[in-house]
Amino acid sequence: MVGGGLGAFVGAIHRHAAALDGQIELVAGALSSTSERARESGAALGLEPARTHARWQDLLDDELRRPADERIDFVTVVTPNDLHFDVAHAFAQAGIHVVCDKPLVHDSGQASQLREAVLRSGVLFAVTYNYSGYPMVRQAREMVKAGAIGTVRKVVVEYHQGWLATKIEADRNKQASWRTDPARSGLAGALGDIGSHAENLVHSVTGLEIEQICADLDAVVAGRALDDDGSVLLRYQGGARGALLATQVATGYENDIRLRVSGTLGSLEWRQEDPNILHHLPLDAPRQMLTRHSPWLHPHAIAASRLPPGHPEGFLEAFANIYLGVAQDLRARRDGVALTPGQGDYPTLEDGARGVRFIERAVLSARSREKWTAF
Amino acid sequence: MVGGGLGAFVGAIHRHAAALDGQIELVAGALSSTSERARESGAALGLEPARTHARWQDLLDDELRRPADERIDFVTVVTPNDLHFDVAHAFAQAGIHVVCDKPLVHDSGQASQLREAVLRSGVLFAVTYNYSGYPMVRQAREMVKAGAIGTVRKVVVEYHQGWLATKIEADRNKQASWRTDPARSGLAGALGDIGSHAENLVHSVTGLEIEQICADLDAVVAGRALDDDGSVLLRYQGGARGALLATQVATGYENDIRLRVSGTLGSLEWRQEDPNILHHLPLDAPRQMLTRHSPWLHPHAIAASRLPPGHPEGFLEAFANIYLGVAQDLRARRDGVALTPGQGDYPTLEDGARGVRFIERAVLSARSREKWTAF
Amino acid sequence: MVGGGLGAFVGAIHRHAAALDGQIELVAGALSSTSERARESGAALGLEPARTHARWQDLLDDELRRPADERIDFVTVVTPNDLHFDVAHAFAQAGIHVVCDKPLVHDSGQASQLREAVLRSGVLFAVTYNYSGYPMVRQAREMVKAGAIGTVRKVVVEYHQGWLATKIEADRNKQASWRTDPARSGLAGALGDIGSHAENLVHSVTGLEIEQICADLDAVVAGRALDDDGSVLLRYQGGARGALLATQVATGYENDIRLRVSGTLGSLEWRQEDPNILHHLPLDAPRQMLTRHSPWLHPHAIAASRLPPGHPEGFLEAFANIYLGVAQDLRARRDGVALTPGQGDYPTLEDGARGVRFIERAVLSARSREKWTAF
Amino acid sequence: MVGGGLGAFVGAIHRHAAALDGQIELVAGALSSTSERARESGAALGLEPARTHARWQDLLDDELRRPADERIDFVTVVTPNDLHFDVAHAFAQAGIHVVCDKPLVHDSGQASQLREAVLRSGVLFAVTYNYSGYPMVRQAREMVKAGAIGTVRKVVVEYHQGWLATKIEADRNKQASWRTDPARSGLAGALGDIGSHAENLVHSVTGLEIEQICADLDAVVAGRALDDDGSVLLRYQGGARGALLATQVATGYENDIRLRVSGTLGSLEWRQEDPNILHHLPLDAPRQMLTRHSPWLHPHAIAASRLPPGHPEGFLEAFANIYLGVAQDLRARRDGVALTPGQGDYPTLEDGARGVRFIERAVLSARSREKWTAF
Repeated sequence: MVGGGLGAFVGAIHRHAAALDGQIELVAGALSSTSERARESGAALGLEPARTHARWQDLLDDELRRPADERIDFVTVVTPNDLHFDVAHAFAQAGIHVVCDKPLVHDSGQASQLREAVLRSGVLFAVTYNYSGYPMVRQAREMVKAGAIGTVRKVVVEYHQGWLATKIEADRNKQASWRTDPARSGLAGALGDIGSHAENLVHSVTGLEIEQICADLDAVVAGRALDDDGSVLLRYQGGARGALLATQVATGYENDIRLRVSGTLGSLEWRQEDPNILHHLPLDAPRQMLTRHSPWLHPHAIAASRLPPGHPEGFLEAFANIYLGVAQDLRARRDGVALTPGQGDYPTLEDGARGVRFIERAVLSARSREKWTAF
Repeated sequence: MVGGGLGAFVGAIHRHAAALDGQIELVAGALSSTSERARESGAALGLEPARTHARWQDLLDDELRRPADERIDFVTVVTPNDLHFDVAHAFAQAGIHVVCDKPLVHDSGQASQLREAVLRSGVLFAVTYNYSGYPMVRQAREMVKAGAIGTVRKVVVEYHQGWLATKIEADRNKQASWRTDPARSGLAGALGDIGSHAENLVHSVTGLEIEQICADLDAVVAGRALDDDGSVLLRYQGGARGALLATQVATGYENDIRLRVSGTLGSLEWRQEDPNILHHLPLDAPRQMLTRHSPWLHPHAIAASRLPPGHPEGFLEAFANIYLGVAQDLRARRDGVALTPGQGDYPTLEDGARGVRFIERAVLSARSREKWTAF
Repeated sequence: MVGGGLGAFVGAIHRHAAALDGQIELVAGALSSTSERARESGAALGLEPARTHARWQDLLDDELRRPADERIDFVTVVTPNDLHFDVAHAFAQAGIHVVCDKPLVHDSGQASQLREAVLRSGVLFAVTYNYSGYPMVRQAREMVKAGAIGTVRKVVVEYHQGWLATKIEADRNKQASWRTDPARSGLAGALGDIGSHAENLVHSVTGLEIEQICADLDAVVAGRALDDDGSVLLRYQGGARGALLATQVATGYENDIRLRVSGTLGSLEWRQEDPNILHHLPLDAPRQMLTRHSPWLHPHAIAASRLPPGHPEGFLEAFANIYLGVAQDLRARRDGVALTPGQGDYPTLEDGARGVRFIERAVLSARSREKWTAF
Repeated sequence: MVGGGLGAFVGAIHRHAAALDGQIELVAGALSSTSERARESGAALGLEPARTHARWQDLLDDELRRPADERIDFVTVVTPNDLHFDVAHAFAQAGIHVVCDKPLVHDSGQASQLREAVLRSGVLFAVTYNYSGYPMVRQAREMVKAGAIGTVRKVVVEYHQGWLATKIEADRNKQASWRTDPARSGLAGALGDIGSHAENLVHSVTGLEIEQICADLDAVVAGRALDDDGSVLLRYQGGARGALLATQVATGYENDIRLRVSGTLGSLEWRQEDPNILHHLPLDAPRQMLTRHSPWLHPHAIAASRLPPGHPEGFLEAFANIYLGVAQDLRARRDGVALTPGQGDYPTLEDGARGVRFIERAVLSARSREKWTAF
């Protein structure tokens, strides 16, 4: 693991998620660029001191020195965004599989370079768009794929948070600091941090490709260099339209990402804060509440679920499903067998690259006086 | 009443709403332009044959012929949109108070003419944006006014319906037919029919004035001349931003209008399909569910409510509150007394005119390649 | 109308409900036993002074003196419980149709006398168990009847209120005063006031007949003579079992009556504070949310509804459905025609008598050391 | 771990829960009484063959033979109920700490023997009433303790499941088979399996002690030897009253355990299928929705939570909190230090014994003609 030392929010989540199914063990890390903190973090997590580094380059070198059967199977990159590219690129180039947090990198140029490195070395590359790991999101995806709601015509995705409603970065809030800092966060603030999740959620469920984009981004809180609020209109290839709202200044909201997809034959509605339910609104029949792990769900949705119906699963299990897909793929690669359907289900480098492009194009559109910016 | 003969959906609602508090009685009508239907409708509603007309001009003439104490106090215009102007203008000019359905008229030119006529004759003029009549909407308005959520920064209003997801106007659905017909409906379809409600809901709660507008309108169902789906980005005077989504092709949705308003100190959330609750999300305290008729509500919200908490009120009572405000104003005018605070609370000609402008500007923006169209 | 003068909560509801469909007009009343208040109330409601009385006996005498075509069609009794019997009995005996609030009378002896009087005179007799008027309750009833959930095995009905959580009757709260006074309320407090609604709701949906009852009643608030909290176990004929919980000291709850009925093939769930939805949980398929006025509902449920789906209806419309059934029956009787299916749907004297028996038996059981008291 | 071989539902949950925080590692097991299955299960879970046993006695012997620093820290007993006593008793007697599933044992005699053994050996003993591990349940407990709702007067706890609505034990459903078999399940069916959870939930939140009990138990599905549906009235010491409903034949329900606690100053409401929210209904203020990990929660509730607000946690994390408490206690014991407040929070042998007594007394009451059976 690179990044994710003590106190880092997302590192702990990755570790919990990776560990959940007992298939992945953390054995080495460059958990913090501060030596002492790296050491402390490694110790707290039970890493051998010899595999605890402050510089990610040292981690890479050390691993490459080890015999293949001792070497890490893959690296997880959970640093602030500005380091994603260097770390992921180096490990990929060195032939080590990569799991990288989102948004993937700062721009499409980097994404291309990364793609080339990955193609050359043939490594697995996953991007942790974790919301796509929810069982009921996968159910939605399979239903759309199977035509249950007909041709998709309209998508509304909203992501409301309120934690940046005040200028908490001024109070040394670590999460807020780097996320509002262009040098570390990249081109966008809220749009990159959560808007990209929303974009991925839509793509993961519908497969729709954006054709044109019209964005209005705003830094609502005074003195903020990056957007903390954004509204985006979308036109998809094939004619469907969409609206994507992502804000971090919706005072009082926690992590309210919700999706509505409407097609010719029905609509689907899902809300992350109530994730065990998928609403299906057919054209000519009553609304149905599909619940996680019900026998009538698609096998892929059932496979993404660990507990019986009515025993709520949450964020962690969804996140773990990404890692489970990675573990399945790694094992299949190791054993030289093909993945069975539904296995190896995780967002890929392509998803990551699309996300980067989405941010770029939205920022471009936000600066443009033209209504529509081509995607 | 002009329009609203047997089988007309909205006429019956107006009658129920007006009758609810026992202060308004229907005594005359031009309920249908077909003589026989006008007669039947009048008979069914217990009108005297002498006060049942097919032509609204005859109704007006007949009323003007009667002595003042026999004459109707006001006229309600519930025809398809294309007749609003002629009828409302003629009655206003004749000095008869007017309650008119929304959207008010076809264009701002008509709105101006109407304004002049109303100013000249001094009549009362109400526009039935009924959602502003909900007690918890009024509570939201009073909370915003009192600063409970600080300065408003973001507004999201969504209006999802699914009844036009298929081409039901081809099946002689009366409601669908005129609403999808430019000649009768006006410049816009969904945007005029429900988008204007959404616009009014925002204005009624926040008082925000639109500065710029960016609209994407679509006729999703093949062969439709007017939009049935629209997404609109908004910039308000003072810097707040908004998104307004109005669709009639969200398959399976019924009448799902919902509002989120976020300010520096908190957010408010309301949903018409669960109208007795207003969610208040303060910056630094738990979410509160304010319920209708609770003793801690604003007096104007309590006054808009007829039943104790927990006995659900609905659409009809909210609609009736508009008529109640009209009745209070009429009585105050008759008695030459001032309205007390909270009395005479109904959307006015200005609200109607703003709604017309909203439709015009949104349609203009939808046709423009510029991102922002001035309001 | 007898009772229901100015300030009386339930009288106003009855008037709104009766007026809603424009089929019933209030023309005479003994609205209060205090002369002045009776006069004021009558005036406020637009009654002729000659038809405004303080003594209900005077109302009855006056009406009987009038020619049949001027006479009231029926009387509504909305006094505190202790007057129900005398008034209802006298009007029934005199051949005037009766609508009476619940609980019907104080004991089964009175109920029998009333039944005899009604049988002799042949008058219509309705008891306003208004929750049975909700469209989705009727839908539930029709689904049970049609076997949609198979054989009913278990019923849970809960009625939680909190308004009597403190001793508000000490503060001259009029509603609380008579409801906590054995002389006016009868044998029971909460069990009579709201438990009887719960009993009726179950019977109205399932048709189940109680065989045995086991009750625990409590006066939670010190110094109260009647129960304000009760829990009742039920065994129904045929083997189904039930639990009925009725409390008025559930601090903070408003009017939370909810019903769950489970059968061999599915369950139904309904909650009054969200009345436009009926949840249907089939044995082998996803949960369905049936919504009011959907085309796939039973015709009787659709007929009980005035507004399109998504335009919320509430308490008032449900109450009005009782009066609508009465009006339909009165008209059918007047015209000498049979009621068509679904028409004339209102709770009858038998429902009222069963409710009285339920209260009696529950109170008896509460005093007994035996677990089961025969019904 | 004893029990919990491949295919056993609850064993996997215990393992996931124990592993979640990376503080507990499974190293030995008697996972199945069938040799082959025990071996397969051990292998699948990565146990050394030498520490994989078919007989739990062999596991115990083997562990005792090992040096203390290699020996297991504690055993988890997840067999069907009939083995709990023998296994737990033997390990406790041998001085090995015990975590045991619920219900603890078959009768109070066994519970007493177990208590003696535990007292003698001084081992830690936890019972996995996992619902008490939910952060918002702990918040409720702390609020009650702090007097936030005043004196508790009424408790309603409901546990609705539907999975035994048909005779699935006839289809070799493993879970259903042993749970409906008196030899393996004990005195009670639904009441033992889920009713005991409900009892513990109430006690854990309110601390109330049962004084008298009145139970109605039923085997609804023909041919079942144990209850699958039960309703229990409760009188608590100090005067509070309660109703506990536990059913496994509520067709279509998943795992719907919900709690309402009403006191003189407010009520609390929690529902396991929506576990991140606790509703607080104060006497004189709007309803509040307290959400997990909000800064204004009690420190013990915050400490029981791993993710930020809005990132849903579920069943697994709640279960893991029990194991976390055990791990904290074990570590404190090992280090000879006192537990800090909020640490070591898990249900104890006393909770287990009370649960057994609850089952015994409820079954006794169900067979009695007396209304109340002393507890």
